[in-house]
Amino acid sequence: MAAFETSGEKLHLLSVLVENKAGVLARVAGLFSRRAFNIHSLAVAPTEDAKFSRITMVVDVESAPLEQMVKQLDKLINVLSITELSPEQAIQRELLLVTVDAEAAVRGQVIELVQVFEGRIVNVGHEQIMVSLEGAPDKLDDFENLLRPYGISAIQRTGRIALPRLHN
Amino acid sequence: MAAFETSGEKLHLLSVLVENKAGVLARVAGLFSRRAFNIHSLAVAPTEDAKFSRITMVVDVESAPLEQMVKQLDKLINVLSITELSPEQAIQRELLLVTVDAEAAVRGQVIELVQVFEGRIVNVGHEQIMVSLEGAPDKLDDFENLLRPYGISAIQRTGRIALPRLHN
Repeated sequence: MAAFETSGEKLHLLSVLVENKAGVLARVAGLFSRRAFNIHSLAVAPTEDAKFSRITMVVDVESAPLEQMVKQLDKLINVLSITELSPEQAIQRELLLVTVDAEAAVRGQVIELVQVFEGRIVNVGHEQIMVSLEGAPDKLDDFENLLRPYGISAIQRTGRIALPRLHN
Repeated sequence: MAAFETSGEKLHLLSVLVENKAGVLARVAGLFSRRAFNIHSLAVAPTEDAKFSRITMVVDVESAPLEQMVKQLDKLINVLSITELSPEQAIQRELLLVTVDAEAAVRGQVIELVQVFEGRIVNVGHEQIMVSLEGAPDKLDDFENLLRPYGISAIQRTGRIALPRLHN
């Protein structure tokens, strides 16, 4: 099974289609919790059909137990399908929303970074700006690191989503 | 408490700072599940300090029980803080990744839509293209609806994240 490394951890990328019902997320998260597997990031949102939701999870596990995990997930009520996406065969994207200190004297420097990364300025205050940036998770890490010296007063990331790369 | 409507449902936007430990998400999701409150969307990702994660939840509830819910969340182990963001005072963003059918004859039409919405083409196949789009959730809904007639073969959304609007 496919795995990839982020800051030394072994991570797996799972895409789980579930029925959009109360309690489904709790059952899925509970399954991982009982095994003390840490969910690195998770995103759940309704699909194009509002009856279903899709959960994209990045999980920190060794490969062998994951296979077992997938089997058990598959047995859960309201879970319709599970796909493991290998990083080589997937396009991964994540969204970051960050409020960074940018008083007039350094605002130009911050805006330069936003432009280089092709981020978007979504809100401007006297001493701060709020920026959205979408991209591969590594790119978001880099952006975050470059902004940190200016002062980050609030930040949120979505966790990654992924779709299979197209075949040509 | 603040609430907003999406397709007739009453929704709340919660931002929950938690310790980045196995089982925290299961406890949070379990709390909502036991009350049969449906989580519309949820995003969890590590914060700038890897010891903590932030959960952004959109929950479908009436206002009164939510206040109780916030109190109970607050008592949960590993939950550090809870903020309810009112939609008027928050900048909300979400990310969409979609693979749409776009054979040569209609590819131009699809690309036009991507440009109008300021999306990004992230992968191109012979008969399909994959697009990423970030924006307010309503904008993503509109984009999805406009693409549907061409044929959507895969779609994932992150669920929304939000930060407080800057004061000027």
